[in-house]
Amino acid sequence: MLVTDPRVAEHAKIVVEYSCKVKRNDFVIIQATPEARDLVVALSSELGKVGAHYVVIDTNEQSYRSYILAADSATLSVLPPQLLRLFEDSDVIMNVGAFSSSNTQEMSDVPPQKLREVAAAMGPIGEVLMKKRWNITLHPTKALAQDAKMSYEAYSDFVYSAILRDWPRFDSEMHVLSDKMATTNKVRITGKDTDITLSIKGRHPKVSSGDHNMPSGEVFVSPVETDVEGQVYFDMPVIYLGHEIKGARLTLRRGEVVESSAEEGEEILRAMLSVDEGARRIGELGIGMNKGINRFTRNILFDEKMGDTIHLAVGRAYEETGGTNKSAIHIDMIKGIKDGGTMYFDGVPIYENGRFNWEN
Amino acid sequence: MLVTDPRVAEHAKIVVEYSCKVKRNDFVIIQATPEARDLVVALSSELGKVGAHYVVIDTNEQSYRSYILAADSATLSVLPPQLLRLFEDSDVIMNVGAFSSSNTQEMSDVPPQKLREVAAAMGPIGEVLMKKRWNITLHPTKALAQDAKMSYEAYSDFVYSAILRDWPRFDSEMHVLSDKMATTNKVRITGKDTDITLSIKGRHPKVSSGDHNMPSGEVFVSPVETDVEGQVYFDMPVIYLGHEIKGARLTLRRGEVVESSAEEGEEILRAMLSVDEGARRIGELGIGMNKGINRFTRNILFDEKMGDTIHLAVGRAYEETGGTNKSAIHIDMIKGIKDGGTMYFDGVPIYENGRFNWEN
Repeated sequence: MLVTDPRVAEHAKIVVEYSCKVKRNDFVIIQATPEARDLVVALSSELGKVGAHYVVIDTNEQSYRSYILAADSATLSVLPPQLLRLFEDSDVIMNVGAFSSSNTQEMSDVPPQKLREVAAAMGPIGEVLMKKRWNITLHPTKALAQDAKMSYEAYSDFVYSAILRDWPRFDSEMHVLSDKMATTNKVRITGKDTDITLSIKGRHPKVSSGDHNMPSGEVFVSPVETDVEGQVYFDMPVIYLGHEIKGARLTLRRGEVVESSAEEGEEILRAMLSVDEGARRIGELGIGMNKGINRFTRNILFDEKMGDTIHLAVGRAYEETGGTNKSAIHIDMIKGIKDGGTMYFDGVPIYENGRFNWEN
Repeated sequence: MLVTDPRVAEHAKIVVEYSCKVKRNDFVIIQATPEARDLVVALSSELGKVGAHYVVIDTNEQSYRSYILAADSATLSVLPPQLLRLFEDSDVIMNVGAFSSSNTQEMSDVPPQKLREVAAAMGPIGEVLMKKRWNITLHPTKALAQDAKMSYEAYSDFVYSAILRDWPRFDSEMHVLSDKMATTNKVRITGKDTDITLSIKGRHPKVSSGDHNMPSGEVFVSPVETDVEGQVYFDMPVIYLGHEIKGARLTLRRGEVVESSAEEGEEILRAMLSVDEGARRIGELGIGMNKGINRFTRNILFDEKMGDTIHLAVGRAYEETGGTNKSAIHIDMIKGIKDGGTMYFDGVPIYENGRFNWEN
C-alpha cells in the first residue's frame, strides 16, 4: 500500500492505463518536479505492475532558472542531441506538472529573450512528443493552490473531482456534442453583452477526453477564419505572459477583431491582439464539458475544460480540425454560459439554462 | 546570487571544475534525489557558466521501492536500452547522494532477491560509468545526519569541512605518502590488540583525491594476497548488508583470515567472511587522510577517508594497484590509529603519535 491519499493512486492508474495505455516493455519518460513526488511514487508502482521501464527527469524550475541565468546564448540555443535522442527512444512521455509546481512565478525575473531562446531550442522535443503517446497532468501543490486562491485541501479536492471520472463514459457523452457539431454550419452564442455567430461549416470538431490532457473534457474546433460576426464578453480573466486581463470584450467583423476593450489590462489585451495578423482572428471555439471543474484556477490545463463555459482562442488554429489561421500565439479567452447563456446550432438552441437539450 | 548556504555553491564549483572538469558542450547526467535540490540548483548554475548541457534524473528511493515491489522478475532483470544509451551518450555522470538521502532504510522491506536482480540488470551502466568522467558526492540531508547520530547543523558543518578543501594541494600531500609506499615492501601496523604486517611489494599505490569521490582523501593499494600476517582490532563499526559489526578482530596467516571475533555481530562477521574464498583475504589497504572527516558517520563515502585511520577491505582487490583477489564483496573495516597506533614502512616508523614523520 502507498502511504498517501488514495486518490493519488487512482490518478496514477488513470494516467498509466487510460491516458497513455502503457504496456509491457514500454519505455516511459516522466518529467516531474519534486513537489509531485507522491504522484511519481504512485506512477512508479503502476508502471512496475504493467512491466514497463521508465526514467524520471527532474524538471524543477529553480534549477532551470539558475542554468538559464548563468548560460550564454550560444549554450541556450543548443538542444543537446543526447536529450533529443532520449525522447526519440521513448514510447510514452508524461509531464507531471513539470516546470511550474513549486512557484509559478519562478521564471519571473529571467529575461524574456533567454526564455525565448530556450523555447526555440527545445522545439524539436515538442515535435518528437507529437509522435508518441503523451500526457500532461499535474499533482496538486501549494503553489498551484495559491494561484487558484484556494486552500490546499480544497484545491486537492478540486483537482481530483476533475480527474477521477469514468473517462470512457465521459468520452461517449462528449461525442454526442461533437457529432452534432460535425453537421452544423453556424454556432451562435448569446448572453450578457454577447451575441456572436461563428461558421464551422466543413470543419472537424474534436473531443479531448484524457489521452493528452488529464483532466480533459472539451469539444473544440477551429472556426472559418473569415466568418465570425458579433460581440462577446469574457467574464473569466485572460492570462497573457503572466498578466491578467479582466472583463475583456471583443467585436468581430468578417472574422477579424475590429473593437476590443477590457475592465482591467486593456493595454495588454491590445498588445496581445497586435502580435501578428493571425492574433486578431479566432483559432478555436472550445466548449468546456468537465463539470468537476467548477471554478477558474489560473491554470489553462483546467480552466479551458470548465463545465458550462465556452472559450475562443485568438491566434493559431488546429489543423486537424480544418483550421488554417497562423499566429505566434494561441490564447484562450473563457466565458461562463451557465447563467443566461444560450448556444444555437443552425438556429436551434442546444444549450440553455445550464443544460444541453439532450441532457435530463 | 543563490539563496542558500554559500557553501553549497562552493561545493558545486569543486564538483564541476575540479572533480569532473566539465567543459563547454559536455553533456552531463546528474542523478539526484529531491532532498539534494539546493546542490542541484547550484550545479545547474555552474554548468550554465561553463556552457555544458545536462539532465537531472530523479533517483528518489521511494519511487524505486514502489516500482521494484510492483514489478516482476522478467521486468526487473531488464536494463532498458534507452537508459543505457543515455549513459553511453554522456560525457560526465554525477551522483548526488542518489538512492539514499531521504531515508537510508527505504529499501529495508524490499526482498533482497529483487534488489539483487536490479543490481545485476544495472551492471552495464556501471561499466559505462567507468569510461566517463564520473563523481559521487552528497548533499547533507536529515536522513544522513540521523545515520551519523548528529544534528543537521553539525552534520552540514562536518560535510563541508570534508569537501571544501584546497584539493590540488591536498593531492600533493597525499602523493608524498603514495610515493613512499611505491618503494615499500612491507607495511606493519601496531596498536591496541593489533600487530599486522602486509606485503605491498611490486604493487602500485594510488591516491584518491576527489575526481571520483567528493569528499575523497585516501591512499590505497591491494596487498599481496598471500602475504598478510598478524592480528588486527577494528575500533569502528563495520557495516555489512545494513548490519553493524562492532569491535571486530581478525587474525591472518599467509593472507587468509584464520580467526575472527566481534564484540557485537560476530555471526554477521562470520557470514561475511564466508561469502566466498576471496572474502577471507585482504583486497585493500587504505590510509585515510582527510582530517576534515573526524568521526564515523555510517557512510562509506566519508568513513574510509577519515584522517588518522587505516582500513582493510576483505574481498575484491583493485586491479589498477596490482591486486588479484576476486570476491563478490569488498567490505571496508576501519581502524583509528591516532591514539597509540604506529605504522612502519620496511621497519621505519612513518606514522606515530598522530603524525606522519614528514609532517611538522
